[in-house]
Amino acid sequence: MKAVQVVGYDQPLRMTEVAAPTVTGPYDVVVRIGGAGVCRTDIHILEGQWKEKSGVTLPYTIGHENAGWVHAVGSAVTNVAEGDKVIVHPLITCGLCRACRFGDDVHCEQSQFPGIDTAGGYAEYLKTSARSVVKIDGSLEPADVAALADAGLTAYHAAAKAARRLRPGDKCVVIGAGGLGHIGIQVLKAISAAELIVVDRNPDAVKLAVSIGADHGVVGDGSQVTQVLDLTGGHGAEAVIDFVGEGGATRDGIAMLRRAGDYHVVGYGENIDVPTIDIISTEITLVGNLVGSYNDLCELMVLAAQGRVKLHTARYSLDRFQDALDDLGAGHIRGRAILVP
Amino acid sequence: MKAVQVVGYDQPLRMTEVAAPTVTGPYDVVVRIGGAGVCRTDIHILEGQWKEKSGVTLPYTIGHENAGWVHAVGSAVTNVAEGDKVIVHPLITCGLCRACRFGDDVHCEQSQFPGIDTAGGYAEYLKTSARSVVKIDGSLEPADVAALADAGLTAYHAAAKAARRLRPGDKCVVIGAGGLGHIGIQVLKAISAAELIVVDRNPDAVKLAVSIGADHGVVGDGSQVTQVLDLTGGHGAEAVIDFVGEGGATRDGIAMLRRAGDYHVVGYGENIDVPTIDIISTEITLVGNLVGSYNDLCELMVLAAQGRVKLHTARYSLDRFQDALDDLGAGHIRGRAILVP
Amino acid sequence: MKAVQVVGYDQPLRMTEVAAPTVTGPYDVVVRIGGAGVCRTDIHILEGQWKEKSGVTLPYTIGHENAGWVHAVGSAVTNVAEGDKVIVHPLITCGLCRACRFGDDVHCEQSQFPGIDTAGGYAEYLKTSARSVVKIDGSLEPADVAALADAGLTAYHAAAKAARRLRPGDKCVVIGAGGLGHIGIQVLKAISAAELIVVDRNPDAVKLAVSIGADHGVVGDGSQVTQVLDLTGGHGAEAVIDFVGEGGATRDGIAMLRRAGDYHVVGYGENIDVPTIDIISTEITLVGNLVGSYNDLCELMVLAAQGRVKLHTARYSLDRFQDALDDLGAGHIRGRAILVP
Amino acid sequence: MKAVQVVGYDQPLRMTEVAAPTVTGPYDVVVRIGGAGVCRTDIHILEGQWKEKSGVTLPYTIGHENAGWVHAVGSAVTNVAEGDKVIVHPLITCGLCRACRFGDDVHCEQSQFPGIDTAGGYAEYLKTSARSVVKIDGSLEPADVAALADAGLTAYHAAAKAARRLRPGDKCVVIGAGGLGHIGIQVLKAISAAELIVVDRNPDAVKLAVSIGADHGVVGDGSQVTQVLDLTGGHGAEAVIDFVGEGGATRDGIAMLRRAGDYHVVGYGENIDVPTIDIISTEITLVGNLVGSYNDLCELMVLAAQGRVKLHTARYSLDRFQDALDDLGAGHIRGRAILVP
Repeated sequence: MKAVQVVGYDQPLRMTEVAAPTVTGPYDVVVRIGGAGVCRTDIHILEGQWKEKSGVTLPYTIGHENAGWVHAVGSAVTNVAEGDKVIVHPLITCGLCRACRFGDDVHCEQSQFPGIDTAGGYAEYLKTSARSVVKIDGSLEPADVAALADAGLTAYHAAAKAARRLRPGDKCVVIGAGGLGHIGIQVLKAISAAELIVVDRNPDAVKLAVSIGADHGVVGDGSQVTQVLDLTGGHGAEAVIDFVGEGGATRDGIAMLRRAGDYHVVGYGENIDVPTIDIISTEITLVGNLVGSYNDLCELMVLAAQGRVKLHTARYSLDRFQDALDDLGAGHIRGRAILVP
Repeated sequence: MKAVQVVGYDQPLRMTEVAAPTVTGPYDVVVRIGGAGVCRTDIHILEGQWKEKSGVTLPYTIGHENAGWVHAVGSAVTNVAEGDKVIVHPLITCGLCRACRFGDDVHCEQSQFPGIDTAGGYAEYLKTSARSVVKIDGSLEPADVAALADAGLTAYHAAAKAARRLRPGDKCVVIGAGGLGHIGIQVLKAISAAELIVVDRNPDAVKLAVSIGADHGVVGDGSQVTQVLDLTGGHGAEAVIDFVGEGGATRDGIAMLRRAGDYHVVGYGENIDVPTIDIISTEITLVGNLVGSYNDLCELMVLAAQGRVKLHTARYSLDRFQDALDDLGAGHIRGRAILVP
Repeated sequence: MKAVQVVGYDQPLRMTEVAAPTVTGPYDVVVRIGGAGVCRTDIHILEGQWKEKSGVTLPYTIGHENAGWVHAVGSAVTNVAEGDKVIVHPLITCGLCRACRFGDDVHCEQSQFPGIDTAGGYAEYLKTSARSVVKIDGSLEPADVAALADAGLTAYHAAAKAARRLRPGDKCVVIGAGGLGHIGIQVLKAISAAELIVVDRNPDAVKLAVSIGADHGVVGDGSQVTQVLDLTGGHGAEAVIDFVGEGGATRDGIAMLRRAGDYHVVGYGENIDVPTIDIISTEITLVGNLVGSYNDLCELMVLAAQGRVKLHTARYSLDRFQDALDDLGAGHIRGRAILVP
Repeated sequence: MKAVQVVGYDQPLRMTEVAAPTVTGPYDVVVRIGGAGVCRTDIHILEGQWKEKSGVTLPYTIGHENAGWVHAVGSAVTNVAEGDKVIVHPLITCGLCRACRFGDDVHCEQSQFPGIDTAGGYAEYLKTSARSVVKIDGSLEPADVAALADAGLTAYHAAAKAARRLRPGDKCVVIGAGGLGHIGIQVLKAISAAELIVVDRNPDAVKLAVSIGADHGVVGDGSQVTQVLDLTGGHGAEAVIDFVGEGGATRDGIAMLRRAGDYHVVGYGENIDVPTIDIISTEITLVGNLVGSYNDLCELMVLAAQGRVKLHTARYSLDRFQDALDDLGAGHIRGRAILVP
């Protein structure tokens, strides 16, 4: 089959012919790829940023946001069958450690991450596990939802965690109205009645956020903290979800909190640097957020099937992988680029 | 009545004769002081550290850890009566704001803090509110429990919050086995079956911690993070409660956490300075902790009455206030110094 | 002032002239009535059903769903001022007992219930407490929201409690699409993405339910349990909220539950009679629901101000109280009858 | 191998020679039995009470409370190895359904129950799954803990669920101080500071309960509800755990509840028959409890290893199975009878 591989760091990806994966273990599932999201992390991998962390041996196939159709299943697989339309959770998890047994499979003690440390989805077929495939509604197309497998799932996870404490009348600030923020806003509208305040440096992104349901848009021109305090009666917001995590966003986000508020870290880059006295005197909580669990992905697919969460995509045939990466690098992609074999 | 007052910053406290407080409002409660804890914060007040923050007008009476007997009550008071033995919650709260209505009275929008911004308990009588007095068991003496009103209540609040997620087999690290840590350990033993690992630089404090129920004692000699990781099978602990918050404790505490663990900030001093990527990749939570609520204080008094929480005290008559402060400053107090009028 | 009073059981109400209430206690609030909801409970009171339970002395003024404008306040009242537009929580609570201190003010140990055991709102003025008045948005009219004070608040409370465990893809059955069910459906749509299945014997009520957002309507013709099981893939629903509680609704509701599901009792009348083995083998929970707390009412008023919760009302001038009761008894009221002084 | 089988209903069990189970699937685990608990359910099976419910084909081997040593493992098993000392969770679960993915494996959509619907542990070897074996501490012996696998696990599950809402000062009533109640009391003492009130008709059982930590013992002589109300200041208890569920225990248990209290059903037999108005006017919750999850069993084994939960046992060699059943039927077993091959 065709696969797009990392052949060296700081070198271009290369399309090549490799053996298609086959079922060897009882819980194996081979998926025929219908769409693979092109993510900024893919660029970082090529730059070598994940070299040590992943320990992967080159060459290998990248692509960690995948959806398609079940092509073959192992002997013990009972939850999907050949031909099923599925989205693929980004991790392969063991199902036996304590974290997996609690449903926190993201903290599995021995997980694999296709596209990062083993063969991913820039290819015609992908091998994953029965524990990682979620059947999707007949109305959804793999190429349309693929990007929800990782970026969308992270946004869902953070928004759902935040929503658990948000009641009508509470304020929730979303910092960053890009891809993840866009999903986060739609999720919050679907599962809470909190008042949403969206902050972004880009006025167009703010406009778009308001058009999909944000109650207030704030352009981050230096006055964003003051604006949010004004919009919250001087008290600050019960929750802040920071999809940016750099360029001062963490300092802003914490300053926008109400006493006893929750600051959710999703985007990353800079350090959080805050006096302990500020944390204890206001009794705030700083909450880390990783990608969502398998059950989170099931729930996100429900919202997608209901039309409550949508993502704009730009499709590229698999052999145009370089164009997709170039367009992403140049900031020309609206929503998400998707490779379609 | 006699009262010990701040008459100027960087000047000694002065005992003087002032008018005893009287009931003027419907919810007022005047307490005859049975014991007032001497706290390091009292020294900080004298040094002027709270000058701007409190905005208090000098002279005024300090003392924010108080217990005694109800002396007089306002017309609307139904929960206590003259003669009742009570401990005094450190805040006077409104009871009408949303935080008060949820039981989070510590985040009351218009609270007062006797001993900090209004007249406190280094005196014969103290004026507080019906919302701030907790009746104590007949077996408890005001002078014995007074110090639980603030320091003990803070430790209870953090320990109880941490315990809500601790299950048998989980590990909980307590950093700092001083006054607060001492209470925290006793509380954790009473309400959870978590395995307790106590870390302190002082070997004697570690020994004392083990003698009151800590499962493991770790002397903070530079190897404390490694020792905790060894004691937790290399995984780290589900929860860390940091009663120190300075001298590198925050960095250590975060390094001792398991994936998805909770780091509780109680002590303060230094900045928390941590890369966002470390927070999100392990999905940890950093939890601020302030003093406990009124209901928390009721619960702590139950544990005290059951003999599950004890605090060593050294009594001084009120006119020996300077000796108590001097002994505290010199590190000669074991447990807590208590002024008894 | 004019007031409509119970002068004897099984006798008609009588409008009479009584002294207007005045502020006597520090937390008293006198409200000029803008609207008082006419509730089936009022008919039950007249029939003597509450005679022993309430122990009220006749004559007294009925009416427990009230809204209006603050007319006068006691000396200690800080949360409202003369002229404020308010809705009145049905209970007057103490604020000092443990339940009140946790925000569960509905379980106050010494509450009063105007309209039931003390003077209510079928009158020009009503006396209540600062703890019971919620300021409403300028866009809302007292006569429009008065019925949310009790019936609506009960529905909000149950729906919000149920929603806390409902995730996207979960099913929630609402039994009874009358006044309470109508509010419950709107609340669930606002704060959750659960799939709503509404069951009622009246096909018109089912149609109305679907028109305001129910995902499925089921006419209760004897096949309702089967229909719900079919709509839930044979598994049953994660939650059932029963606003009926009689005529077999409890048996039906429990039969519609999924394993580990929650059955919420709101309506009442019949006994729940279920084998313990059925409860333990499916591990279901049966949840009682009373009227909501003060904070619940604040949240409901947010949803009302956002236009997410609406109630149809029919206004009657206060002196037409008998017409309102007659129309209610005859089933001629759509939504709620409101008396306007 | 030797196995004790059901060969017909209302006929004695028969020891026979059958083929030892072998590993055939990737997650299979064969356990060499070290102890198998003799449970009243085993007698009910023989009486035919489970005939239709289980649908099992005779003859088959009974025994659902098992512990021993891992004898052989399938190719995909990573959590245990040959020779490991283990206790066996009573269910074999799929790991793929939504309930399993949330950690609620007890509600697995396609579970098996060895000893009930497939071959159990009155034998030399038992076949189960990697998902069902919990490694136990070196200090514990299989024959000593076997009975915790089902009876003990059920008690742990209910006690831990109840404890989640119990705070210091809260009262918890335990109805029934037999095998399950005995474990429940020890668990509650280990993980909460609630005041325990134990009710049993047998004065000796009450004495034993007090000796292992119950704060109050109440002999159920008809005055038990009054006694509990007296012990709770007339308010009732925050939680009641009913390990009996027959002979009037459900009516008593509900009558012992405080407003907003939780009644936990564990024992079963009679119907719960309660007016809906009583449920809603006090806003109580009735909570079904089934056996605990895999993670619950891990936690219970921690408490057992810590010496906090102990169970008295009487050992019988496997071929004396009939004596064990007879002694159980005659009420001669203190604690639990254990068959040891």
